[in-house]
Amino acid sequence: MPDIQFAPAPDDKQVLEIGSDLTPRFDANGLVTAVATDADTGDVLMLAHMNAEALALSIETGIAHYWSRSRKQLWKKGETSGNFQKIAEMRVDCDQDAVWIKVRPQGDRAACHTGRRSCFYRSVHLNEVGTAELQTDPITES
Amino acid sequence: MPDIQFAPAPDDKQVLEIGSDLTPRFDANGLVTAVATDADTGDVLMLAHMNAEALALSIETGIAHYWSRSRKQLWKKGETSGNFQKIAEMRVDCDQDAVWIKVRPQGDRAACHTGRRSCFYRSVHLNEVGTAELQTDPITES
Repeated sequence: MPDIQFAPAPDDKQVLEIGSDLTPRFDANGLVTAVATDADTGDVLMLAHMNAEALALSIETGIAHYWSRSRKQLWKKGETSGNFQKIAEMRVDCDQDAVWIKVRPQGDRAACHTGRRSCFYRSVHLNEVGTAELQTDPITES
Repeated sequence: MPDIQFAPAPDDKQVLEIGSDLTPRFDANGLVTAVATDADTGDVLMLAHMNAEALALSIETGIAHYWSRSRKQLWKKGETSGNFQKIAEMRVDCDQDAVWIKVRPQGDRAACHTGRRSCFYRSVHLNEVGTAELQTDPITES
């Protein structure tokens, strides 16, 4: 178990928004949203979730930990693949229900379970008949 | 009402992940998560949500539309402040439950309701006594 314990979020919105205490506003499932970007390229790699344990372990170890909603368990990313994410910086948003981590991917650097560098490998375009279609963008291909 | 209609997400995971159809996997509340980054600096500006209407309008108009969970209404960001977000690019993730938009903020360029350029204006640090504390980072100050 991690050492860090989080105090409950304050009722005072000002304290929440400008204070220096990390008091995450976990949702009804005990989760905050986490967005991971590549610390060097700026690309968004993945969106995932952290419970209190995953967030505390991420801060304490400097390695990204998430909560897997599908497997319902703590998920140290890279534990089986070796593609750990070293955290270069962590930020929290105004109302403390989301964190942004800038990471340096290890191993083969895949963030996506499909093997790609980023989960966001398709761009959205409005085509001539007015429907939205996807194009796989080579920039974020592995 | 927007013209774009989204087909239901396919049961076939392969089709969902490598297909060229945008078939968003809206959650139980009818929402996908949206992360907005600054198209020029790469900074994460905000995390929010889109329902089908907000997503369709974002694609059709090139201006970011969200669903306000607190106000329970469509939210064309900048409608009152003038801080519209022009979408330079939209991407969708592997399982189509999240979108990443690269935007060019208009007006005074604030994404955060506190007036700051980004909602992520505080970084998280582990201090000497092993607790997590926040520092306001001047880089993303308005």
